[in-house]
Parts: sequence; C-alpha cells; structure tokens
Amino acid sequence: MNFSPVGNKLLQDAVEQLSSLPGIGKKSALRFALYLLKQPVENVERFGNSIVSMRREIKYCTECNMISDGPKCSVCADQRRDHRTICVVESLRDVLSIEATGEYRGVYHVLGGVISPMDGIGPADLPIDALCRRVEGARVDEVILALSTGMEGETTSFYLYKVLSPMNVKITTIARGVAFGDDLEYTDQLTLGKSIANRQIFSPEI
Amino acid sequence: MNFSPVGNKLLQDAVEQLSSLPGIGKKSALRFALYLLKQPVENVERFGNSIVSMRREIKYCTECNMISDGPKCSVCADQRRDHRTICVVESLRDVLSIEATGEYRGVYHVLGGVISPMDGIGPADLPIDALCRRVEGARVDEVILALSTGMEGETTSFYLYKVLSPMNVKITTIARGVAFGDDLEYTDQLTLGKSIANRQIFSPEI
Repeated sequence: MNFSPVGNKLLQDAVEQLSSLPGIGKKSALRFALYLLKQPVENVERFGNSIVSMRREIKYCTECNMISDGPKCSVCADQRRDHRTICVVESLRDVLSIEATGEYRGVYHVLGGVISPMDGIGPADLPIDALCRRVEGARVDEVILALSTGMEGETTSFYLYKVLSPMNVKITTIARGVAFGDDLEYTDQLTLGKSIANRQIFSPEI
Repeated sequence: MNFSPVGNKLLQDAVEQLSSLPGIGKKSALRFALYLLKQPVENVERFGNSIVSMRREIKYCTECNMISDGPKCSVCADQRRDHRTICVVESLRDVLSIEATGEYRGVYHVLGGVISPMDGIGPADLPIDALCRRVEGARVDEVILALSTGMEGETTSFYLYKVLSPMNVKITTIARGVAFGDDLEYTDQLTLGKSIANRQIFSPEI
C-alpha cells in the first residue's frame, strides 16, 4: 500500500516501525497504528514505555543466561528446584514451553542460539564455557540436551556432547517419537522409524 | 501460556501491552517481545518513540477530519484535486484503499465511524455537521457515499442522504456488483441480483 498520496509523516514512521515486527506487514502495521491512534494518550505512552524499559532494563541470569529482573532468574533462585539437573535449550521460548508442561523440576541453561557456521555463529559465541563451569563447579548429575533436530541443533548437541563427556556427567536428550494423538499414517518416516527403534516397555497408566 | 514460573515483570508487562494490539494473542506478543529484546537499544527506543509521538502529535484535518501533520491534510491542501467532489468514508483505511486505485481526484470526508445505536454512536458523534457546512459553504457538486453495506453503514448513508438532499447537491454511491475475476457461481445472491438490476451499457475497452 502506498502512503504517499496522504503522506502523514508521523503515521508513516509508526507504520514502518510496527512493520519491523516479525511476520507483520505494512497492512497489519497500519491496522495497529490506527488502533493505537484511537486509544487514550496514557495507554499509548504505557505501551511505548513498557517496551523500551523492557529492552533497557532487562538483565540476564548470571547462572543460566535466561532473561531476568535481577542477577539471578526465578528458576535459579528457587531452592526447591533440582539444581543437579540442567536442561540446555536454545531460547526462553523453549523454557516457557517446558515449564508449561509442569514435568520438569530441574534448572536450565539458555544458549540463546545454536552453532551455525552459515550465520557466523561458532561455539565461542554461545555461553558454552559458562555451562562447562556450572557442570564442573557444582555437583551436576545430568545435562539434558533439548535443542532442535535441524542440522544446526544437532551439530550443537554433538559439540556439547564432546565437551561435556569427559566431565563425568550423565548426558541425555529429550525423547523423540510419534506425538500423542498423531496417526502413524501421517507421521514422517524418520520419526516413526526412530520411535520403533527406541520403543519402550509398555506401562498402563490409569 | 503461563509466565509465572519464570515470572519476569518487564517481559510480562511488554507482552501484555503488545497483546493488546488487534488480532495479537499472548504467543505472538511474546514473539514480538523476544524479537525486540534482540534489537539494539536505539532501535527499540525509536520503535517506542515513533508510536508515542504519533499518538501525541497527530492532528486531524480541519476540513475533512483525516489525520494530518498540520491543520490541513495533504489531500485538502492539494489545489490540483477536485474540491467540488467529496467522498464520504468511514476511516483513513478507506481513503488509502481508494487512493491506491488512482481513480479518484476529488477530496474526502472521514466520518471516523458509522451511526451505531448499539454502541451508543449517534449522528451527533460523527462530523456530519462539518460535512453539511462544507457542502453549504463551498461549491460542491457531488457527494459520494462510500460507506460499508452493513446495517449501520446503510443507516448512516440513509441519514446523510436525508440531511444532504435539500442542499442541491448530487448524491451518489459507489457501484456494487460482481468483482472483476469473480465467478457468478460463487457470488452472493444479493450482489448478483443487484448487479443484474443495475446493469450497464457494454463498452468494449482495449
């Protein structure tokens, strides 16, 4: 959509900024801008300020690299959690997904990315040293690798395995297989093949 | 998604604010927030400021009620446009859509809404008086009603018709019919019926 005929500098700037959000085009951005124009000034100021102060003031946990209000995130600061189990994930989003299941009581280590030579991201760009220090320093029983299964994720998992294996720590990875509710017919070959190869003892649960 | 386990106040605030945008849920808002967290501080400040200053500083054209940088919008200020034809639309978005066609050289009148008793919006809440003053004051030949065809849009069109008809001005409405490229088979009955009733002389264009 071309704005120039009714060129309004302020609107145009705001639309440009809003359309920088991932997955948002000019049309949605315009919709957002017109919505914001209809809101009371205080609300729009709160909107803008909350974003800017998030960016300015957010900290990263010195332990696990997760975003945090203080020096330690709420997971690492929680003494009821199992600090001997560390789950390595790519991003905060993965942490939120795992936390939502309620199945995990250990702590995390957020890499913030994966090794990706194409994007110029090497092992040194990720907080892998920090992970090693955690494993060496504290008594850690198990490191769970919960990275994605793409080429880069697997490269990273392999690298971590190589680095961690001399450290006398159990290295596991999350179970892959046919999702609950999925039809075998529509499951990709790789997943189905692995799920048969890695079959488990049947345990009926009520 | 529940944030509480990794409750980060700053992130939570920003996600809440971003999810207030139309059509954006918590999940997309989180995606936006994590994206913004990865951007340089200056960029995020520019993002926030552009939105807040848009809301604070934007003006409305004293003539046609369109948003504007100054007292007159760029359409009303443009002397090459036909000021004797006024197209009445509901919102700026309609103006942008019509401008994008390049078919219209007249000016606009942006109502900013339609008469909607359910939402407590009466004729007095819309700049209809201003439209009447424009028609009475200047030499206006034609008023084009380009409002939506829903109940409220039609009520508003009818109200405008009643108010404007004593004023010796031609009142028209945009043509409705089967869209170019549409199959008759899939066109709704009302549109197809009207498009036959309002058929036009065939004029072959090369």
